[in-house]
Amino acid sequence: MPGQFLPFSADEYARRLAKVRQAMALQEIDLLFIEDPSNMAWVTGYDGWSFYVHQGVLVFHDADPLWWGRSQDAHGAVRTVWMQDDCVAWYPDHYVQSTMCHPMELLAAIIRDRGYGDKRVGVEQENYYFTAKAFLTLQQELPDAILADATGLVNWQRLIKSDDEIAYMRKAARISEKIIDGIVEHIEPGARKADLVAEIYANAVRGIDDDWGDYPAIVPLLPSGSDAAAPHLTWDGRVFEPGVATFFEIAGCYRRYHTPFCRTVFLGTPPDYLLSAEAALIEGLQAGLEAAVPGNTAADIARALAIPLENAGIDRAERAGYAIGLSYPPDWGERTVSIRNDDLTILEPGMTFHFMPGLWMHDWGLEITESILIRESGPAECLCDRPRKLFVKN
Amino acid sequence: MPGQFLPFSADEYARRLAKVRQAMALQEIDLLFIEDPSNMAWVTGYDGWSFYVHQGVLVFHDADPLWWGRSQDAHGAVRTVWMQDDCVAWYPDHYVQSTMCHPMELLAAIIRDRGYGDKRVGVEQENYYFTAKAFLTLQQELPDAILADATGLVNWQRLIKSDDEIAYMRKAARISEKIIDGIVEHIEPGARKADLVAEIYANAVRGIDDDWGDYPAIVPLLPSGSDAAAPHLTWDGRVFEPGVATFFEIAGCYRRYHTPFCRTVFLGTPPDYLLSAEAALIEGLQAGLEAAVPGNTAADIARALAIPLENAGIDRAERAGYAIGLSYPPDWGERTVSIRNDDLTILEPGMTFHFMPGLWMHDWGLEITESILIRESGPAECLCDRPRKLFVKN
Repeated sequence: MPGQFLPFSADEYARRLAKVRQAMALQEIDLLFIEDPSNMAWVTGYDGWSFYVHQGVLVFHDADPLWWGRSQDAHGAVRTVWMQDDCVAWYPDHYVQSTMCHPMELLAAIIRDRGYGDKRVGVEQENYYFTAKAFLTLQQELPDAILADATGLVNWQRLIKSDDEIAYMRKAARISEKIIDGIVEHIEPGARKADLVAEIYANAVRGIDDDWGDYPAIVPLLPSGSDAAAPHLTWDGRVFEPGVATFFEIAGCYRRYHTPFCRTVFLGTPPDYLLSAEAALIEGLQAGLEAAVPGNTAADIARALAIPLENAGIDRAERAGYAIGLSYPPDWGERTVSIRNDDLTILEPGMTFHFMPGLWMHDWGLEITESILIRESGPAECLCDRPRKLFVKN
Repeated sequence: MPGQFLPFSADEYARRLAKVRQAMALQEIDLLFIEDPSNMAWVTGYDGWSFYVHQGVLVFHDADPLWWGRSQDAHGAVRTVWMQDDCVAWYPDHYVQSTMCHPMELLAAIIRDRGYGDKRVGVEQENYYFTAKAFLTLQQELPDAILADATGLVNWQRLIKSDDEIAYMRKAARISEKIIDGIVEHIEPGARKADLVAEIYANAVRGIDDDWGDYPAIVPLLPSGSDAAAPHLTWDGRVFEPGVATFFEIAGCYRRYHTPFCRTVFLGTPPDYLLSAEAALIEGLQAGLEAAVPGNTAADIARALAIPLENAGIDRAERAGYAIGLSYPPDWGERTVSIRNDDLTILEPGMTFHFMPGLWMHDWGLEITESILIRESGPAECLCDRPRKLFVKN
């Protein structure tokens, strides 16, 4: 029986499947195996924390997709995918993390049985969870097949969001705002970081009214002072100090759709260098938003951002954002478009990005970001609605 | 400057490095590249949510390990590893998630520069994050090297815990107990799952007194009723219903060390089949604990567990546990020993496991588990101290 609590309509899944098949045809792929949990969920609805073992979805041109995974997770698949139960296949538990056998041996048997043993089979070579060993095992078990690299094939189909997806990202944006409001309210000198993180999680998970919060694909990041030079440090039990800036990198998440949002809070009177950086960054964000119009490229956003920053003597080499939407750990990005000088993807209405020009300098950091939606015309819309500034609390 | 907030002493890291080098020598590996974030942290202390991009540690026989990763994460590395700053190397940001270049091209250059271009280089073929593409790129860039499979090489060195590690797991156990206490206190018919998850996170993250809680490698799992047949479903906004069982699979985490702990709560009067299963499961757990003595094998625990379950007509094919300790998402297991019939690993004092005989039946589920420590003699010690039973709340 198909899942009773699917996030999207049958039409929406049909639309997605058609797009994937079209991309497969363009790349002359006869059969596609996707192991990226985000792609699995986007195509089938599957939702569960089971991606720490091998699993995936086979996409056929002429039949419904086949969910494939560990025996016990097949129970979760029949409850969450839109396909009928005979589109759920499983492997026995003793294949899990075994040194004697590998689940891909059994996937290869399915591929052979279905008649694709000598066909072009697409696999996501550059993806979490599809390991080198998985690839080598498939290669060994399918000597007559061509294992074509289909990295990103599904991800690129996800780039332009449907109205239903945008509605979910707006719900996630409300949650992001609530998280940031809670941070600004509760942060103070002497407060323990771990206690503030408890507040962040509570707001993230309770959500807003009936719109409960799902787990974000990245945990809250909140380094302070000189540690804010390092963007990916997590929390500890130390307290917030006066005279120090802390950035907060968070995302509200609604049914796996993320709307990341970052703000920085200074406790006390900020130093001049931080105020100058704030001014340049806000000017750069505004310039970037104005460049984020259909027909321009992702690189145009990056270039517009860079000018005010360079004028302020800030040379940042990092990318300034990435496509966002449905995701699972360890990354809430879609891993397609990057907002940077060499990405010439043409912007289209319905694309969504985390416009994320974090400043990670030698011994300080500043994050003020926006999740944006490319509109039919005019500058991008910011999905969250909170002051675009360095928050100062005395 | 080495990290100022390292979780372990220099001696502890020296012990670990010596063990890894010994294992490398046994497998005739000249140079080891580890990308598993748990292994990276265990060897170097590195801690950060940066594993969504390629990074890793090179382990040499005759020099300190080299941390390697994305430019911005090098800031996090110099703050968290025990090595000097010249043991931190980085690649430029435009290699991140690029379709034009791959970070492994630059890692290969380092390997060649250090004189290992024609040597036996160990890589973790079966590991999250070391992708098929990473392997193929290294293979192409290092045509004269032998890329030996070193999957699990470091993981196996982690199996027997030091006293310091066990002390951390005891702290995590206190946090696990606090989480379960909070669940039993707050669950009631009509309460929203998402709200209870907010409580779970708050307890997990606040920790106990100075022992703040780190993020567990798996989010809380709490399926109810028939959905409890599916072990890896996460929460939603529905409410707890009377007359239904919900299992809670959680772990306290202290500085990345996990002590998983699962209990099931029934709201109302449990049906007979659940009480029979509870009795058999508790008998099986007790039998397993008594079999968990030095000199016995992991399989002995599984077999001791199985007898009372089979007597009660419960035939479970899944593994009944796994090694635990330091971990990062997506799995809090160490991915070495499994408690199952075909695992003949001999138990030794200091090993730690999540003894996890979850029952996931056709339309119900029951989880009562223990995280255990193998002692010098006698049955294993349970790290958490809460009643081993189905909790019933009327």
